[in-house]
Amino acid sequence: MAMRLSTLFLRTLREDPADAELPGHKLLVRAGYVRRAAPGVYTWLPLGLKVLRKVETVVREEMDAIGGQELSFPALLPRDPYEATNRWTEYGPNLFRLQDRKGVDMLLGPTHEEMFTLAVKDMFSSYKELPLTLYQIQTKYRDEARPRAGLLRGREFIMKDSYSFDVEDAGLEAAYQRHREAYVRIFDRLGFDYVIVYADSGAMGGSASEEFLAVSPVGEDTFVRCAASGYAANVEAVVVPQAPPVPADVVAATPAAHVEDTPDSPTIETLVAQSDALHPRTDGRAWTAADTLKNVVVLLTYPDGSTEPLAVGLPGDRGVDAKRLEAQVAPATWAPFEEKDFAAYPMLVKGYIGPGTLGTGSSSGIRYLLDPSVAEGSAWVTGADEHGKHVYDLVLGRDFTADGTIQAAEIHEGDPSPDGAGTLTLARGIEMGHIFQLGRKYAEALDLRVLDEHGKLVTVTMGSYGVGVSRAVAAVAEATHDDVGLCWPRALAPADVHVVATGKDQAVFEHAEGLVAELEAAGLEVVYDDRPKVSPGVKFKDAELLGVPTIVVVGRGLADGTVEVKDRRSGERREVAVERAVGEIVADVRGAHLTGAPVVAHPPA
Amino acid sequence: MAMRLSTLFLRTLREDPADAELPGHKLLVRAGYVRRAAPGVYTWLPLGLKVLRKVETVVREEMDAIGGQELSFPALLPRDPYEATNRWTEYGPNLFRLQDRKGVDMLLGPTHEEMFTLAVKDMFSSYKELPLTLYQIQTKYRDEARPRAGLLRGREFIMKDSYSFDVEDAGLEAAYQRHREAYVRIFDRLGFDYVIVYADSGAMGGSASEEFLAVSPVGEDTFVRCAASGYAANVEAVVVPQAPPVPADVVAATPAAHVEDTPDSPTIETLVAQSDALHPRTDGRAWTAADTLKNVVVLLTYPDGSTEPLAVGLPGDRGVDAKRLEAQVAPATWAPFEEKDFAAYPMLVKGYIGPGTLGTGSSSGIRYLLDPSVAEGSAWVTGADEHGKHVYDLVLGRDFTADGTIQAAEIHEGDPSPDGAGTLTLARGIEMGHIFQLGRKYAEALDLRVLDEHGKLVTVTMGSYGVGVSRAVAAVAEATHDDVGLCWPRALAPADVHVVATGKDQAVFEHAEGLVAELEAAGLEVVYDDRPKVSPGVKFKDAELLGVPTIVVVGRGLADGTVEVKDRRSGERREVAVERAVGEIVADVRGAHLTGAPVVAHPPA
Repeated sequence: MAMRLSTLFLRTLREDPADAELPGHKLLVRAGYVRRAAPGVYTWLPLGLKVLRKVETVVREEMDAIGGQELSFPALLPRDPYEATNRWTEYGPNLFRLQDRKGVDMLLGPTHEEMFTLAVKDMFSSYKELPLTLYQIQTKYRDEARPRAGLLRGREFIMKDSYSFDVEDAGLEAAYQRHREAYVRIFDRLGFDYVIVYADSGAMGGSASEEFLAVSPVGEDTFVRCAASGYAANVEAVVVPQAPPVPADVVAATPAAHVEDTPDSPTIETLVAQSDALHPRTDGRAWTAADTLKNVVVLLTYPDGSTEPLAVGLPGDRGVDAKRLEAQVAPATWAPFEEKDFAAYPMLVKGYIGPGTLGTGSSSGIRYLLDPSVAEGSAWVTGADEHGKHVYDLVLGRDFTADGTIQAAEIHEGDPSPDGAGTLTLARGIEMGHIFQLGRKYAEALDLRVLDEHGKLVTVTMGSYGVGVSRAVAAVAEATHDDVGLCWPRALAPADVHVVATGKDQAVFEHAEGLVAELEAAGLEVVYDDRPKVSPGVKFKDAELLGVPTIVVVGRGLADGTVEVKDRRSGERREVAVERAVGEIVADVRGAHLTGAPVVAHPPA
Repeated sequence: MAMRLSTLFLRTLREDPADAELPGHKLLVRAGYVRRAAPGVYTWLPLGLKVLRKVETVVREEMDAIGGQELSFPALLPRDPYEATNRWTEYGPNLFRLQDRKGVDMLLGPTHEEMFTLAVKDMFSSYKELPLTLYQIQTKYRDEARPRAGLLRGREFIMKDSYSFDVEDAGLEAAYQRHREAYVRIFDRLGFDYVIVYADSGAMGGSASEEFLAVSPVGEDTFVRCAASGYAANVEAVVVPQAPPVPADVVAATPAAHVEDTPDSPTIETLVAQSDALHPRTDGRAWTAADTLKNVVVLLTYPDGSTEPLAVGLPGDRGVDAKRLEAQVAPATWAPFEEKDFAAYPMLVKGYIGPGTLGTGSSSGIRYLLDPSVAEGSAWVTGADEHGKHVYDLVLGRDFTADGTIQAAEIHEGDPSPDGAGTLTLARGIEMGHIFQLGRKYAEALDLRVLDEHGKLVTVTMGSYGVGVSRAVAAVAEATHDDVGLCWPRALAPADVHVVATGKDQAVFEHAEGLVAELEAAGLEVVYDDRPKVSPGVKFKDAELLGVPTIVVVGRGLADGTVEVKDRRSGERREVAVERAVGEIVADVRGAHLTGAPVVAHPPA
């Protein structure tokens, strides 16, 4: 039945809502698709629910097509399984914990690895029953610190999560590939720009991992691409290669390290600015920030509340990337060193911290990790651990050492691609899907073993695969809207056609009724603006705002035997003779369904 | 695609699970439909999820057919709206409460009156936008004290809840009727015995209210029926009429009240047993329990934790009905008076409590309510507030008074129907649906007002209507199973046909494959037992256990050109020629779909 605007539970807003940040989110609220119930918690109004269900259907069909079996775990879960994997603690404040009336600890599931693992352990016991892929489309909970951007990072949200179970690593690899292909079909069908990037598997453990990102300037994820090779990776996953050691003869020719006065130079900028005058380079080149070694000390906080400082050494021309560092230290979180932290480590001279006071063997005992671009044998200008002084020609391996390396420096546009094939460009995206080879971590923690063909118990290897179903609605809104409203891809639109009847002429409304009935008889879904006392201007504005792909206006043209058919996205409009209208509209809708929207190329895995 | 038992995520159990109480629940676990994740919290395995989705679809279709608009509220909700209606407190320990990382109070929604009311307040503002019916099919949470009987009373469960919004009372009445008719269609379609009974609206407030009960001996609800009039009511909703006053001449002839020694008679039985000997009646009739007035004192606990004793006076031939009393005192709960309570009220002599120490004006100050069968002017034997003594010929209105009446006495088989038309029979049922006229309680608490045709703000009147979607699966299992397994009505079965291939003959499996493909091509859903090394006996047992309505066995008969078609419920089996099998099976399935299962008559509202 057509959704009639005279009765639909809908109120469109002309003003942006106060509680929305991003343009797509503002439009979703203004167009009456969602409403905020609490921070990060949303109500799906009728139009929004239609879009959500379409995402669910596409995801379900493609999961079924690769042999996935759907089941549904509860959201309210017991503590024990999450204790066994240590996630009860590791999740920290992101986990919604509660107690029942008997004081028993429970949680709201943030993800269900534990439950799937235990279900398979409960039901299956032989290699003959594998491989197995299970999935659910279900509500999840994470108590995000900053539930920004509405549905993009909600505290209650809907995910499709699936898990594969195999005995052999090759089986996991195959299950991963099947999911990858299913995800390509899912995101192709949804019909908007996306890219597949190598991903950091972060706190989940595991190895191979890729993300499907909706390309959008408001995305929270930064990714890199190399046009030459097709390489694409989430910025957290970029692995900067270890710089090769400096040749021994070059190191031998490097002067001994020497401490120099560098008054008032607590930053790289102030240091570089005065170095040419105070201590000119012997090779005649000017000093640059890239010649300096910056040492950044941060405070890590572990899920159990304990803390530890960590020092990161990296070339002075780039900063620490917050998300790359976050990915490296997970499940710990990090924060900049504050005055009270400096007070606890008086050997650290703020602005002049050098390798001399860093490292587990040093006076501070602070773990010290270097960016891999810092080569063995390379010489640096860096802090001398004394106010107003820096040390020059300090050589890694000769004059200082560190405890290891860390992938935490910023990636810059133009940096070489890690595969050596060209240079990187940077862009932003919204994570829509994530696939990864989890391996045996959960199976080991929860003792999921099956008998192999020799009657021996072997630990099962698992893959974990997620699609953000509610997030997809928001991501598509961000990726496809324009200035005046939403612009749904056909596959996700709440309806195929939005019929607008304008004016006061009873004949217009009667004709529009007939048209709606014929379109529905042809199998199309219709929004019908049948409001009797609303001006054409308001109706047109609402139609643009709602974003149904095809808008049909029945109005003054009817006297000449035509209706107007408008493509919401391109803005193209044409007059169509009333007797041909249904046929042409159906052809428009079906044609678009067949071809889909253009999709960016994605590299093979 | 057929569900193949060789790969389906299923393990059937021969033994009853330890964590299930009721026969239908045991079978749901044994047949691999559900598994317990925590007390009152269940995982839906593939077969169970199929059944659940079928209930959802039927409910959704019938709600859409009466113009209901679907939306979806979150389960994680803010405290404020529930504070405004006082339910944050009234729900007591049944409410799952939690705090987010900032210490903000939240709850898991037990029901969504507040959220629907606020949504309408947010979106609509004029009588022209009403009437309106909104609904959702959504996961709800209640921290039940005794999550018994698995899915029947879970702590996480799925409900369809809908709400109607009207300006006029007549509109609410019409919305209620539309829902009643939709519910009749829903439960007719589900295809099992149910009855519609008058219900107590309990803690929800409101007025007219009916329940749809699945008739089952394991039901938690007791209901009464009057065959003569068609009257049917939940036992909590039975309103016993007030007994007419005793004629004045009879009262005048009643002797003055007199206290008698009744040693060792702390119970009605011991009192009646000795009364004939000690104090024979003047009319020559023997004393019976019905001549005594029993005074039961209980302790009420309010949601805010405060307590109050309450005395109930009722004829000694019946007890207090726990659920009727519970319904009357809600949102308070009640418990029997304990020793410590008696210690706090020393004027109450246990076993000999009489009206003399009861009532708000008495020495105890305890509120005292009488069963309506206790007539003004009637004479009673009752406690004399002294150990071993009772008072005889104590007349209501002459010798004692009470603070009011209460509908809390047991209803007995054979009691007169409240409508005067006949006598009552008692039976048990499982609540599947509940409809009621909520009125303006929530709209007033949350200030939901709209402009009427005169431009005046008027408070909206609401109806509230629920179907237990996950409970329906369990209720149908309880109402339809037999000794060897589940017996699904066609509309709810996880598949239409269960094809069993037996033996080791490759030709049998090939033929079965072909049959499955043809049945699927005809639009049927099929479970196919293609397990190669499982004995026919095990396969037959599993087929009975799973409860798909039609079982087709491809096996030895194939040599004679036949397959066996068996009706799971009736046990009827017949040999069908292979060339006619598909046609006959499809006819069986479609025929049964058309006629549905027999349904008991239900009275008009």
